[in-house]
Order: sequence, then C-alpha cells, then structure tokens
Amino acid sequence: MSVTAPKGFLAAGVPAGLKASGNLDLGLLVSDGPATAGGLFTTNAFAAAPVELCRRRLVDGSARAVVANSGQANAGTGPEGLEDAEHLTAAAAVDLGLDPGDVLSCSTGVIGPRVRVAAAVAGIRHAATELSAAGGPAFAEAIRTTDTVPKQTVVDGGGFVVGGCAKGAGMIAPDLATLLVFLTTDAAASPTAVRHALRHGAAPVWNALTVDNCPSTNDTVLLFANGASGSEPSVEGLTEAVAEATRDLARQIVADAEGATTTLVVQVDGAGSDGDARRVGKAVAGSMLVKTAVFGKDPNPGRILQAVGASGARFRPGDVGSSLGTVPVIVGGRVPPEFDPAACAAAMKEREVVIRISLGDGPGQATAFGCDLGYEYVRINGEYTT
Amino acid sequence: MSVTAPKGFLAAGVPAGLKASGNLDLGLLVSDGPATAGGLFTTNAFAAAPVELCRRRLVDGSARAVVANSGQANAGTGPEGLEDAEHLTAAAAVDLGLDPGDVLSCSTGVIGPRVRVAAAVAGIRHAATELSAAGGPAFAEAIRTTDTVPKQTVVDGGGFVVGGCAKGAGMIAPDLATLLVFLTTDAAASPTAVRHALRHGAAPVWNALTVDNCPSTNDTVLLFANGASGSEPSVEGLTEAVAEATRDLARQIVADAEGATTTLVVQVDGAGSDGDARRVGKAVAGSMLVKTAVFGKDPNPGRILQAVGASGARFRPGDVGSSLGTVPVIVGGRVPPEFDPAACAAAMKEREVVIRISLGDGPGQATAFGCDLGYEYVRINGEYTT
Repeated sequence: MSVTAPKGFLAAGVPAGLKASGNLDLGLLVSDGPATAGGLFTTNAFAAAPVELCRRRLVDGSARAVVANSGQANAGTGPEGLEDAEHLTAAAAVDLGLDPGDVLSCSTGVIGPRVRVAAAVAGIRHAATELSAAGGPAFAEAIRTTDTVPKQTVVDGGGFVVGGCAKGAGMIAPDLATLLVFLTTDAAASPTAVRHALRHGAAPVWNALTVDNCPSTNDTVLLFANGASGSEPSVEGLTEAVAEATRDLARQIVADAEGATTTLVVQVDGAGSDGDARRVGKAVAGSMLVKTAVFGKDPNPGRILQAVGASGARFRPGDVGSSLGTVPVIVGGRVPPEFDPAACAAAMKEREVVIRISLGDGPGQATAFGCDLGYEYVRINGEYTT
Repeated sequence: MSVTAPKGFLAAGVPAGLKASGNLDLGLLVSDGPATAGGLFTTNAFAAAPVELCRRRLVDGSARAVVANSGQANAGTGPEGLEDAEHLTAAAAVDLGLDPGDVLSCSTGVIGPRVRVAAAVAGIRHAATELSAAGGPAFAEAIRTTDTVPKQTVVDGGGFVVGGCAKGAGMIAPDLATLLVFLTTDAAASPTAVRHALRHGAAPVWNALTVDNCPSTNDTVLLFANGASGSEPSVEGLTEAVAEATRDLARQIVADAEGATTTLVVQVDGAGSDGDARRVGKAVAGSMLVKTAVFGKDPNPGRILQAVGASGARFRPGDVGSSLGTVPVIVGGRVPPEFDPAACAAAMKEREVVIRISLGDGPGQATAFGCDLGYEYVRINGEYTT
C-alpha cells in the first residue's frame, strides 16, 4: 500500500534523531525513472523554507525524489532555513545520483527551530540504503508528528494505480493545500494533466477540511507520475483517481485529528456555487460551538444555524434546511418547533456524524470534513513543545 | 455604576421564570425623557428577531426603552419570533406609557426555542414597578447567561457621563457589533453624533474581540443619549467616552470568557491600515493553537507566526516582529535563534498576556482582545443545553 503501491516508486523511513522520541523521522521517496510532478502549497504568508524550495523546483513540471522529515518544520527559520533545505536535497541528490533540481524537501514539526542538518544528512545516507518498493509504510511512519496512525491509500485507476500518504492531526485548515500529502502514480501524465488532477481532484477536498481553522506554514501536496504502468489515462480519469485517493486520506486525517472522538461530514447542496457550498461546510465543520456540542452530544441546532449564518455565503435564510443524521435541525430557516433533542443527541453518538445542509435550489455543492473538539485537543496543544 | 449612572435613566431586573435557574432573567431600561438612540448589529445572516425589530425602530434615530431577556435568544424562531418581540415591546409600552415604536427588544440564550411570552409579559409588569435610578446592576444581572459576573462601566466624559453594561462569554467574534451591550449617556447628542460615536468609538473595539470566532445571531450594541446632564459634548468627546466605556466592557468580557483563565491583548502596529492591523490581531487572539498554548503555558512562538501569516493581511514577512510580554518571539520575520522558552513560559503565567506585533512601518494599528482555550470551555459548551 501507500506511495510505493504504483510501479517504479521506492521509499524508506529511518530514525535520524530529529525527534526526541527516537521514532522514524526521516523519509525518502524516489521514482525509479523520470517523472512529471506538481504541487499545491500553503497560502500562509510565512510559507516554510521547504515550500519555497518545492515551488521553485516544480516550475519545470518534473521531479524525481523528496526528502521528508518530522521533528522540525523548518518554518520561521529565515534564510538559514532555505539553506538547510537546499543542503538536505543536495545530500540526497548525491546519495541517489540525481540532479539536485529533481529533489524536493518537506518538513513538519515545531515551527522555529532549525532542522538538525548533520543528523538529517546521516539519516538520508541511511535511508538511501534502505530504499525499496515495500518502503511506503516506513515513509508514511517517518512523517508523523501528533498523528496516532499513518494515513495511506491506494486507488486502482484501471490500468494504473494512485498511491498516497499524508500526515496531519492539528494546524489543519488548508487553504489551497494541506500539510504533507504525497501522491504517486504509475500513470503517464503530462505536467498539465498533473496540475489539473491536483487542482480539480485534490484541492477541492483539502479546501473543505478543517481540524482547528489554522492554516499551516508547511501545507504541501505533491503528486508524482512516472508512467511505469504503461497506461496514459485521460485527464478526467487521472483526476478522479487522485480525488478518490484524496478523499480517503482526508477521512483518515479527520478521524485521527488531535483529541477527536467523532468525525464530522458536512454535505452542502443547493448553494449558488461550489465555493459558497464549501464556505458553509467549512464554517459548520470548523465552528468551535458545533465541535464542542458534538463532543458533548448536546442537541443544540442553534449552533448549526449560527455557523451557516456567519459563513459569508449568499442564500435566502428562509430557504435553508438541515438535518443531523436523520433528525431535522433547521426547516425553512428556523429550528423547527417539533425539534427532537433526544433523537439529535442519539444521532451524535455515531463515530461519524453527517450534517446535511440545503441552502436553496442552486447548483453548488461540497462536502466538508471536520471533527469534534474535546479535552484531549486542549491537553495536546497546551503541552505541545513541553 | 452601570447604565443608570448617567442622569435620567431608570432600570430594573427581575426573575420572570425564563431561565430554569430562577435567576434574574428580564430587564427594563428606560430614559426618563426623550432620547436619541442608535445601534450596531450582527452581520449573521440569521439575525435574531429582536435585531430585526431594533433595526426598524432605530431608523428615526430615537428610542426610550429596551426590554431585554436571557434564557431564550429568540433567534431561529421564524415569523413567530418577530411577533413575540413585538408582543413584549407592546406590553412594555403599555406599562411605561410609551409609544411602542420607542421600545426596543434584546434577547440572549438558547437559539431555537421561542421566548416564554406569558411569563415575560408578567415579568415586564413586575419590572416596571421596580424601575429606579439604582436599577442598573439588576438590569446587568438579568442579561447574564454563561457570564459568571455582570460587566458594567461608568466613564466621566467631563460634564456628562457614559454608563454601560454588557453580557457575553461565548459565541463571541463580533463582526460590526457584539452580543448585548447597552450604553447610556446623559449628554445631549444628535442621531448623527450617536451614530458616529457607535461607529468610531464602539465598533472598532468590538470588531477586534473574539472568544471563539463564532459571530452570534443576536449581537447588538445600543446607545441612548438623553441630554439630562445639560452637556452637549463635541462628537469627538462623546466618541472618546464611548470608546473608553467600550474598552472597559471588552476587557471584562474576555476576562470572563467561557472557561478562560488568561486574557489575551494583542497590540498590532505598523500595518498598512487599521483594518489589516485588526485582521492580524483577531487572527492571533482567535487562533485555537495560540489559545491552547497560552492555556498550557507552552512556549511556542511558531503559533503566533502561523496565525499572523494566515490572517490575510498584507505585509512583508521579513519586516514582522513580535514579543510576548517582554520576550521577543519573532524578529525579522522568524523565530529568533536566541528565543528563550523559559522566559516565554513565565510571561504566559500572567492573568493578562500582552502580545505586541509590528508588521512594518505602516500607519495602521489596532488592539484585539481574546482569551485562552482550556478544558472548561469544552465542558461548558459540551453541556450547554443539557
């Protein structure tokens, strides 16, 4: 499974001593042969050094390898941070016999401290000796921070395969991209097809997902296509396979969100545009009041109403309807007099709570993913560096 | 103190049985003589019925009284909600001998259920018999929901007085207005002066305050000016007194925010505009990651950097500096290598944590108010209706 499921990809994950825990913290992912590649990146003004490096090196639409580390995010590190990222990719290029311009860098962890470069370079040399077509899970393991499980996916595109892995449990409210996501495919695809698949297959999913409304400095989604399957699918076929892999990873991310006990799936239709639908879905999935109510199984439909109303989307309030599970919570723009608190509370006891919202008769729709907010989120984030 | 500090204002608060607790839950505030009046209101698309009523009745720039209740927010209640608000104000008009068009309505509490009108009407009759110039504190008491203390203020404008009270502890991220805020003054002021004082004295403070990033359906700020002092200050004089009263109430609100142990004051300067400064201040004060870090006294400057970067304000990242208390946390757009975690953790142990952010050399500045996020917020909001 994971990023080495498609043909012609090798990966490894090793403990390089970047995390105090001694867990795997450095990963290498390499395509056997040339590959087209593209990325989606954070819109945070303090984009991390590896994000800057990836943006530059993907201008030509191709790349062969990526060095990923956890422990230090290499964000907020100034010019030295960019030098560190270049240093790591240069070391990998030497070990892998590649042009440094074909090697990318991704980091995740604490913002501020520099990456421990000497340890990372030794880790890269170690990882290069461990590269294998079975190395995807170790790579996925090496990029974990507060994730309790690695997130991996494999999608059979029919003649080609899309593999993927992701990390992310907090500081998640992607805006154009999220966290670290690595997608590989053995389909042949032009740089244009790769960009299309990222923009239309991956971005709409990530842009409708939130754990804590905090867009990270390091959000990065990379897609490599090496053509090793001999299949060259249509752009639509590639895009749909990428979208399916992305949805699978997105669900895994919200299910493992920091401190979360419940996944929120907010399905919005009838909006004036997909953008308005996404705005409403993300507002509801990201509302601290909805999240705490779901955590406490407190039947409080006014909070869904509040969040929809504050979303900034255009709609006629009287047209809005909503249900939580099968329980109507908004009818004709109001909490219905016959609202059933006991049934609503019971519906929130599911591991996955689905909130449907209809804004009217427009064509726009979206599905947003989120999670509840409980004591564990506070504990984890009150003790993050200490 | 409170709204009856200025001359010519009477108030009362009584238990009307709208809250299950039996606490005060219905308030009346009345000007002895004619008064100019204005308001600021929520931008939530599901504005509550009393907001609709206030908007209509303030078109002429005058009002004499307001009926306020806690327990039910009269939001998400459809056309019946507006009828209920009209019913309450009509009852008050009869009891007070006023034109119904001069009586306003404000509600706060659970969204969805209708106000218990019969109980409220009896409460209004009771409150009308208790009106007094010492009734401000009882009125402030009657509008509490999850507030643990009433919020009141008195400002000596020099020849006139501004009094005020507010309620608010959750669902607070005002956008043009906040929650229930009642300001009174015995200054003489034209409707234009009242509007100016609200827009320039009150709105900038409320628009830079957040407890949980959730703009409420009921946000309302009312200002009554009855001229009973015989003083007619300049518009600037009135605006500054209103601003001072508003800042005092804002600090009281974040200090009593649901589950909060620490007040966050984010002072931003050097922005391109006051709006950009406010955007950055509110992004930092509202960040779940900053809030949990402050709660846990976890020295994590990357979270301030993340929030500034995601705020949407324009600035050059390399120009940004920030300190927490007296500890530098961002220097030249990065976490400084000499960052002192122990000093930063110690600075967060204050009851009020001040974060200063300089975005560059622009003229824009703002002060945002917020609070930390701890276990109690989760408990309160997981059990709100149950």
